[in-house]
Amino acid sequence: MTACALRAIAAADYVIGNASYLDPLEPLLTGKNIIRSSMGKEIERAKQAIDLARSSAVALVSGGDAGVYGMAGIVLEVLEHAGADINIEVIPGVTAANAAASRLGSPLSGDFAVISLSDLLTPLEIIEQRLDAVFSTGIPVVLYNPKSRGRPHNFSLAMEHAKKYLDTGTPVAIVRNALRDGEEVIVTTLGEIEKVTEAVDMHTTVIVGGKESRVWKMGDEIRGIITPRGYHNKYVY
Amino acid sequence: MTACALRAIAAADYVIGNASYLDPLEPLLTGKNIIRSSMGKEIERAKQAIDLARSSAVALVSGGDAGVYGMAGIVLEVLEHAGADINIEVIPGVTAANAAASRLGSPLSGDFAVISLSDLLTPLEIIEQRLDAVFSTGIPVVLYNPKSRGRPHNFSLAMEHAKKYLDTGTPVAIVRNALRDGEEVIVTTLGEIEKVTEAVDMHTTVIVGGKESRVWKMGDEIRGIITPRGYHNKYVY
Repeated sequence: MTACALRAIAAADYVIGNASYLDPLEPLLTGKNIIRSSMGKEIERAKQAIDLARSSAVALVSGGDAGVYGMAGIVLEVLEHAGADINIEVIPGVTAANAAASRLGSPLSGDFAVISLSDLLTPLEIIEQRLDAVFSTGIPVVLYNPKSRGRPHNFSLAMEHAKKYLDTGTPVAIVRNALRDGEEVIVTTLGEIEKVTEAVDMHTTVIVGGKESRVWKMGDEIRGIITPRGYHNKYVY
Repeated sequence: MTACALRAIAAADYVIGNASYLDPLEPLLTGKNIIRSSMGKEIERAKQAIDLARSSAVALVSGGDAGVYGMAGIVLEVLEHAGADINIEVIPGVTAANAAASRLGSPLSGDFAVISLSDLLTPLEIIEQRLDAVFSTGIPVVLYNPKSRGRPHNFSLAMEHAKKYLDTGTPVAIVRNALRDGEEVIVTTLGEIEKVTEAVDMHTTVIVGGKESRVWKMGDEIRGIITPRGYHNKYVY
């Protein structure tokens, strides 16, 4: 969490968010009005936040970065429809792509793409077109919501798309609870990924390396993934 | 900057980074050994950090997220070559994509791609292939290093690729110094972008909206860009 986000919470009369995000903030919440929301009902939460913001300072807390599969867009849309003239600020955070990447070393050193495998709001056909396009470029791809509740097969489908363009030796990592309690990291390859797909669920982020990515080892120990930035083409070290 | 990064700097004996990143940290640096580096010479900086880290705690500071066009990958590569067994941690940050997006509302609400237009380390031909692939998907695209020093025309070239796949009404934003002194935001469209390309330089991040992105207005005032997440297809609000 950024210092900027901490200041915004300190200045708020109301703090709204999922219990899993609010519980770690407990020491900061003394004397504030707390509204614990559950998964889903995003529209209702946005409406409630806007109603309260007409007369109070409200902090709506998302995990990661509120602007990436978070509440920012929904709140702005509801605000537009309400026609309310409320002072609103989106405070950026560390999105799961960067949090997961940091646990692996440097898999996203250069260009990359972020694709959600949830087909709740995007048709699967569109998701598959996007996967084909981004995997074809050979840049690393970060998969959010790698297993949707109702669609356990989207992940394996995504791996099939990846295999059309990338070698079986391409590194793939599964990161659970990056920088949180219960952090877990699995580093494998595209050729071996089917052996560990059970480790993939809603609480994980998956990074599929690109054409230039390789497993990062210290001695015999697998530590993560490095995607070189191309300095090795220009410099000797 | 995250609380985690602040703690790492507090625990460091040596702090290394560009002056522009270290100057705002001045109050945290009392009593520490400071090494101010200049742009370029990344390999030398990585080597120096690793040498010092054999016997001291070293914090190497990057802007944004060290894992995205930052120092993380270079340090790990140099560490591998040196064969040194040093305890290293990559601490994630807010990368320019998320910082710039936050100043615009919510342009990256869902899938997106990050592409650098610098051809210092990646051939222009490869960059163009990547641009074609990601623009063809209709997801928002974040352009880092939108104008390279030696190649002022890469940005206009990128806009030509975008126009092959996106309407001229597609919103495009130029964000300078997001969340820093001298912050400046310009929101325009793909059809009008050529009128403001002089505002694009090394200190800006450019976000090209996707097929579903639209300009975000409050009354008559242009505030930024919204990329809806698709809730409007499922819910009424």
